[in-house]
Amino acid sequence: MEMIKGGVCAAKGFRANGVHCGIRHNRTKRDLALIVSDVPASAAAVYTQNLVKGAPLIVTKQNISDGKAQAIICNSGNANTCNANGIEIAQGMCDLIAQQLDIRACDVVVASTGVIGQPLDLSPIRSGIPALCAGLSADGGKYAAEGIMTTDTTVKELAVSFTLGGKTCHMGGIAKGSGMIHPNMATMLVFITTDAAISPNMLQKALSQDIQSTFNMLSIDGDTSTNDMVTVLANGMAGNPEITAEGKDFAAFMQALNTITVQLCRMIAGDGEGATKLLECIATGADTLEAAKISAKSVICSSLLKAAMFGADANWGRVLCAIGYSGADVDVSKIGVSFRSAKGTVTVCKDGSGILFSEELAKEILLEKEIEILISLGDGPYSATAWGCDLTYDYVKINGDYRT
Amino acid sequence: MEMIKGGVCAAKGFRANGVHCGIRHNRTKRDLALIVSDVPASAAAVYTQNLVKGAPLIVTKQNISDGKAQAIICNSGNANTCNANGIEIAQGMCDLIAQQLDIRACDVVVASTGVIGQPLDLSPIRSGIPALCAGLSADGGKYAAEGIMTTDTTVKELAVSFTLGGKTCHMGGIAKGSGMIHPNMATMLVFITTDAAISPNMLQKALSQDIQSTFNMLSIDGDTSTNDMVTVLANGMAGNPEITAEGKDFAAFMQALNTITVQLCRMIAGDGEGATKLLECIATGADTLEAAKISAKSVICSSLLKAAMFGADANWGRVLCAIGYSGADVDVSKIGVSFRSAKGTVTVCKDGSGILFSEELAKEILLEKEIEILISLGDGPYSATAWGCDLTYDYVKINGDYRT
Repeated sequence: MEMIKGGVCAAKGFRANGVHCGIRHNRTKRDLALIVSDVPASAAAVYTQNLVKGAPLIVTKQNISDGKAQAIICNSGNANTCNANGIEIAQGMCDLIAQQLDIRACDVVVASTGVIGQPLDLSPIRSGIPALCAGLSADGGKYAAEGIMTTDTTVKELAVSFTLGGKTCHMGGIAKGSGMIHPNMATMLVFITTDAAISPNMLQKALSQDIQSTFNMLSIDGDTSTNDMVTVLANGMAGNPEITAEGKDFAAFMQALNTITVQLCRMIAGDGEGATKLLECIATGADTLEAAKISAKSVICSSLLKAAMFGADANWGRVLCAIGYSGADVDVSKIGVSFRSAKGTVTVCKDGSGILFSEELAKEILLEKEIEILISLGDGPYSATAWGCDLTYDYVKINGDYRT
Repeated sequence: MEMIKGGVCAAKGFRANGVHCGIRHNRTKRDLALIVSDVPASAAAVYTQNLVKGAPLIVTKQNISDGKAQAIICNSGNANTCNANGIEIAQGMCDLIAQQLDIRACDVVVASTGVIGQPLDLSPIRSGIPALCAGLSADGGKYAAEGIMTTDTTVKELAVSFTLGGKTCHMGGIAKGSGMIHPNMATMLVFITTDAAISPNMLQKALSQDIQSTFNMLSIDGDTSTNDMVTVLANGMAGNPEITAEGKDFAAFMQALNTITVQLCRMIAGDGEGATKLLECIATGADTLEAAKISAKSVICSSLLKAAMFGADANWGRVLCAIGYSGADVDVSKIGVSFRSAKGTVTVCKDGSGILFSEELAKEILLEKEIEILISLGDGPYSATAWGCDLTYDYVKINGDYRT
């Protein structure tokens, strides 16, 4: 497997674009994104488990119920959620794009992200679609990536090439964070494309399995969004024998998918609202996978630990506290904690109690931009990783006045 | 029932004091508190459900296993948690106070609050105890209240008088917040005293029942502390017939207790770390008590909603989002949301969708210091209240560098 350029256009037969259509006031911010496959593709998706669901998710779920899709349209600046006419508007977006591209409206995936509970006007979208479609190109992945950004400060895209049945395949993805991020059995907005041939069933299986250890282990602020969605389109244009069952090819596909999703998790966490640091909590030695996952996720969700990391303060008591209230079945007297970064590693707790350590070294390690929090839970065989970020003044600033 | 002065010394036969003994560097901050009953009292307590438990909790649990206690000693500045010799130190605190007061060490409740994982030195406590005991008085409640404060900015104490079996009884309490506050089947540090006569069993029953709708419905930052504890001492000196079963007297006792605990919840929430506002979320119309409680608590725990309240932004979509991911079984299409304060009430959402409202009025309402978030979940008979605070720059500041 190799990292390549091109994002969601790295795979054969995919074109993309992103434009400013006027949903947002800032005319320099693209607010409408489009990804199109030359041919209908296998489609799979996972959605938020929040009971309050964005209207676009309901329309998308219906549209890909046959396992097929050909285009993804997504606006930013308005979530089209908790609006009385939300379904109608989301359906309208599909109709408009289908008409312009001459494809079936039921082959369109629709997504929205932004403020909840403000009516979404179809007019700017209607007037933006001709330019959006006219500008579709195999170089447009980054414009689509920009079009779905909300409070994100960095574009999140990547792609890999890999081999299936002797054929070179490609897979790429884009994502948006960066607040209301605490996926629960689903995730924030992520769109992944591949030219690998895989049946809709196996594609859904791959995605549903992958997110358990990737997006579901990510949290920016503990708030599970109403509009979370990950969608994968696989158009088969790489020409590999279609994957229809588990086996070597499915494993290779899973590996490529996991490479994309783990990196997108890291990108989303590192660009969390107001974040100055990417936190990666690695739990090892657990007796069960569940204990490892729950412990790691609890640590990166703790507001107190997140604030301590912002201050580069090796306040490991907050790590133990977060493990203790996580609900994970662990033996506190066996817990060890270390902090690791490019500057080195410092162990601060062994067997559930503090040990002497160099505060200077700890400070130096924690001043880095990427911090690993290593928690050792005992002698068990299970481990898990969770991703998050620090809690900063800017998180409060961004969210104290996001809507107005 | 009447509100009276005196805090934990309002009840007959209780004296208290608080001194600076040197655990903290700041010589103007009292860091050691003591509450003493003239006679052994019925004692009840509830503790944190965090698996990581402070050593003082383990010693206290043992000491009051016979349902009796006579004194409460508590230091601030160090939690005595995750220390290899923690139990020995907590036991040492009991021994020292018992010796000085000539009571049994096993009748002492011991508590600690502050940084986790730093060894607690007994020397300053040993040298502070003579002055602490010498200064015990019926006017010392406020000194004890000061002695247990950590990042609290206000003293939290109150008292009531009430009648049982024709006798006037008194009950008072003190509390400390103000970070790592998300009680789970227990609570932060609260000490309550009363001169009512009640058996240890009924006292425990009253306390365990009360906290379900009070301290367990309070959250500052989602972090369940390792050292949470509420203790009630009832010394019987009011002379009422001892309460040994449910009935009219037990109900009157519960009412007095609930008055104390609800007000302490409000005080703790309003003085949450960095907080500028007290948030009170009142859920009504739920089909089950659980749905009402889970919904209300989820709303006041949302970082996004807390930040919006700091910015006086009527971003009600975050309220719906938080109800949606709470796990409560609710019908989203029936949810209504209003914001209320001394400036009036504004309804912002009906039947799960936004409605037109005056942004000016909403802003005026949300600029107040005490905000009620009213969520109507349907036509059911159940309601619940949860308390919290806004998320501010100062929360990040306080916790970015608490330890060093």
